[in-house]
Amino acid sequence: MAAVDSLSASGAKPGFKAIPGIVKDKVVGVAKNASKIGKDDPRKVMHCGKVGLALTLNSLFYYYNPLYDGFGQSGIWAVLTVVVVFEFTVGGTLSKSLNRGFATFSAASLGFGVVYLAQLSGRDEQAMVIGVVVFILAALTTFTRFFPRIKKKYDYGMVIFILTFSMVAVSGYRAEKIMVMSYQRLLTVVIGGATCIIISILVCPAWAGEDLQNLIAGNIEKLAKSLEGFGNAYFCFPDEDDESGVVAKGDDKAYDHQHYKSVLNSKTSEESLATFAWWEIGHGEFRFRHPWKQYLKVGDLARECASHIHALSAYLTSENQAPIEFVKTIKEPCMAMCSESTKALRELSSTLKTMTHPSPAIQTHLQTSKAAIADLRAALQASPAAGAGAGAGADLFSIIPVLAVASILTDIAACVDKISESTEELSVKARFKKPGKADNNSSAPAPAPELQLLHRGTVNPVAEDEGGYAAVAISGTSQDSPEIGNSNPPEDETKKIISKSGEANNIVNKT
Amino acid sequence: MAAVDSLSASGAKPGFKAIPGIVKDKVVGVAKNASKIGKDDPRKVMHCGKVGLALTLNSLFYYYNPLYDGFGQSGIWAVLTVVVVFEFTVGGTLSKSLNRGFATFSAASLGFGVVYLAQLSGRDEQAMVIGVVVFILAALTTFTRFFPRIKKKYDYGMVIFILTFSMVAVSGYRAEKIMVMSYQRLLTVVIGGATCIIISILVCPAWAGEDLQNLIAGNIEKLAKSLEGFGNAYFCFPDEDDESGVVAKGDDKAYDHQHYKSVLNSKTSEESLATFAWWEIGHGEFRFRHPWKQYLKVGDLARECASHIHALSAYLTSENQAPIEFVKTIKEPCMAMCSESTKALRELSSTLKTMTHPSPAIQTHLQTSKAAIADLRAALQASPAAGAGAGAGADLFSIIPVLAVASILTDIAACVDKISESTEELSVKARFKKPGKADNNSSAPAPAPELQLLHRGTVNPVAEDEGGYAAVAISGTSQDSPEIGNSNPPEDETKKIISKSGEANNIVNKT
Repeated sequence: MAAVDSLSASGAKPGFKAIPGIVKDKVVGVAKNASKIGKDDPRKVMHCGKVGLALTLNSLFYYYNPLYDGFGQSGIWAVLTVVVVFEFTVGGTLSKSLNRGFATFSAASLGFGVVYLAQLSGRDEQAMVIGVVVFILAALTTFTRFFPRIKKKYDYGMVIFILTFSMVAVSGYRAEKIMVMSYQRLLTVVIGGATCIIISILVCPAWAGEDLQNLIAGNIEKLAKSLEGFGNAYFCFPDEDDESGVVAKGDDKAYDHQHYKSVLNSKTSEESLATFAWWEIGHGEFRFRHPWKQYLKVGDLARECASHIHALSAYLTSENQAPIEFVKTIKEPCMAMCSESTKALRELSSTLKTMTHPSPAIQTHLQTSKAAIADLRAALQASPAAGAGAGAGADLFSIIPVLAVASILTDIAACVDKISESTEELSVKARFKKPGKADNNSSAPAPAPELQLLHRGTVNPVAEDEGGYAAVAISGTSQDSPEIGNSNPPEDETKKIISKSGEANNIVNKT
Repeated sequence: MAAVDSLSASGAKPGFKAIPGIVKDKVVGVAKNASKIGKDDPRKVMHCGKVGLALTLNSLFYYYNPLYDGFGQSGIWAVLTVVVVFEFTVGGTLSKSLNRGFATFSAASLGFGVVYLAQLSGRDEQAMVIGVVVFILAALTTFTRFFPRIKKKYDYGMVIFILTFSMVAVSGYRAEKIMVMSYQRLLTVVIGGATCIIISILVCPAWAGEDLQNLIAGNIEKLAKSLEGFGNAYFCFPDEDDESGVVAKGDDKAYDHQHYKSVLNSKTSEESLATFAWWEIGHGEFRFRHPWKQYLKVGDLARECASHIHALSAYLTSENQAPIEFVKTIKEPCMAMCSESTKALRELSSTLKTMTHPSPAIQTHLQTSKAAIADLRAALQASPAAGAGAGAGADLFSIIPVLAVASILTDIAACVDKISESTEELSVKARFKKPGKADNNSSAPAPAPELQLLHRGTVNPVAEDEGGYAAVAISGTSQDSPEIGNSNPPEDETKKIISKSGEANNIVNKT
């Protein structure tokens, strides 16, 4: 339509050729879109086939004579149920089927009771009694839908409760064979729901729990990519001998650090997947009562980290130019923080994906990152800028952006530490697999994860709405850090730690 | 249940007295919860009554003999429609009713066509043909639900399309009077939907559009409160002669700046309200095609601002202590930025609430805020810390938090500027009322808002997912700022500007 409008507006009348052209473009556009959706997640295409199959099976109530003779027109309720309860994920289907089943049963029972009681009064009063009861019950049930807990898990059940109760109570006024009819309907609803559940579990199941885990692992991976992209773009000076003496921003790499953006808006998806996952039966590594809430906590921390990275990215496009001399003085510790946090995030993502206990390499990366914070402190305390404006007239004002980047990087390091603690807690709660041979290799520092968890004290992951970032947290060099009392470890020591972490990495990858 | 479990766990068996006690506590808890929901938004209680009313009215198809004689059992579809389409907001109800109406009509027509064609073949082939067509159409329609655009506005219509088509096609195989029955059902669906629409519009309407506007205006007000709370907590030293010489954080005021948190998570609510508002008819100041998307842009910018405030709040609870001497040197411009941004946010919120053109006072506040940024630059350039570590051994490392706070405050000022631009654009698009007499009063600097908009160049509000913060943006002291070339206006001049804005404020409030 928009295309037609613009044509008319420009004075050219859409001729006989133009309209098919527009339609063709539209069709091609839709087809491309559809093929993209199908390629991105082939389970979606499968889902459509599953819905068709369930519908066709339940249509047999009509097509197959013996069934039709038994259920009559009530068979259509099986078809109806399939259409409204079959959701993409197993959890969604289970949630809607069970809600519908229980709501139908309880509302129908209550409806019969009311109809029976109303029949005790006269015919004229009967309509009045039923009318008043339907009004009150519908209003009350509608109100319960405003309770957040009920809204989250039982909203659909409440709708079906009002629906069935009204139907039974109102039609009970007229139908004589209401008991038989209701029994048939309840049975067909159960059959319709059961078909959906069975097909959604047996034919290429799309588990909400797995989707949640992959979403969060993917988000953490995205954070790692963004952080790596930022480090490369901000601290790498392709033309270091640039005469201008100011930081040359790697604009061509600007897209490397954009991955975090989808993380910022994934809260709603995570929560709805966790709600669906709550309904799912145990399967594979996932038990019936898997700690889904702990996944949400990890997801919230990942979002906190994403918002730090969002703040970082502003400095990449900032017009405020930092003096290159000063940037160079703190480049090394900042790059180390960046790369160690990136590596830790990658490890954490793989911990989630493979459902194994967190690799000891993560702790190594976190320690190295803390050592880099100590290096940064030393570099700043010794910085000529503090003494007298280094190089190209560096005053306090002009170095603010670089200091802010350094400060945010330490925040990110603290946040990665929190993600690591929360993931460790998850690995214990969800009984992740223990890594096999890595523990026996003495070259990697490998404390048992549970012991480590106890050692680190009570873990209090920060929920997003309790919030409060981890502060500048350069004070975060923890008391049990090996760097305490030696705030500026010699460079070769840092390298040793890094190489150790590299080894640990390789070991984990081999196992 | 949890209470019972805990009792059993502690060894005390729930006695005859304990269970009623627990039940009583539970009931009291639910009642308190319910009364809170009702008090927070009395329209929710009203909504329950409206649903009851619509149901009772549509039950008349059964109770009232002449209607029952006309429609028979199809009357139940009116009841069914009411239960599933009556939503809290007018927009929600319209969206579902129209979706249901059009989907039922088109699917029923298509269903008849298919049944007619199938009847041309033999009886045995008929079931086969219908089965195959239902399978294909259901699968295709299910797939369209994965298209984001369709999911957003027409998801319910698609479900009803599959539902009605399957019902008509499948039951067409058996029912002889299918035309009459379908006509009756369509009519009762239309009547049920129309009842819902009429009641939801005429009886205490809850317009999604108004809710959206109030939500966004409320969010901006919350930002103002948080920012004010932060300024008071961070820069006010109750015991300025404190011997420790470090910033004393006002912990008791910690809760004053927590308002922003709900803003961070309001994206989903805003989007769903905007989708519902899109369906709403014109009412009051809101036209039929009100620029809802522009509201979302303002909402996104408010969220960006909230994430800056979130970053600020970390410094309030930070253990890293900044030397009080240094904080004092930049306290004045920072406080000015804080308070001017707060005032501008308050004005913007009231602009949205009252649907009037943005008050000229907003520009005054923004200009004063820019002047404060220039003051900050001057203060930092002249700071003794840049010369040689002021007072209590202030090195670069220890002043990072204070510099970061200053930097974030300038980001916030830039963000408030963007919110102001976006709100101006909204006020033009949505044809907000012009402020009446304020324009005639020469004491207030009152350029016509439209002219001002043109003067400020093309407005490019930043959508959240295009993102990128406004950088440290101290370079943001714009070229047309009156402070250019006079980066440190004398204090009395600043006061004059503030008092002018105060006057403008009063004028706006009077009109």
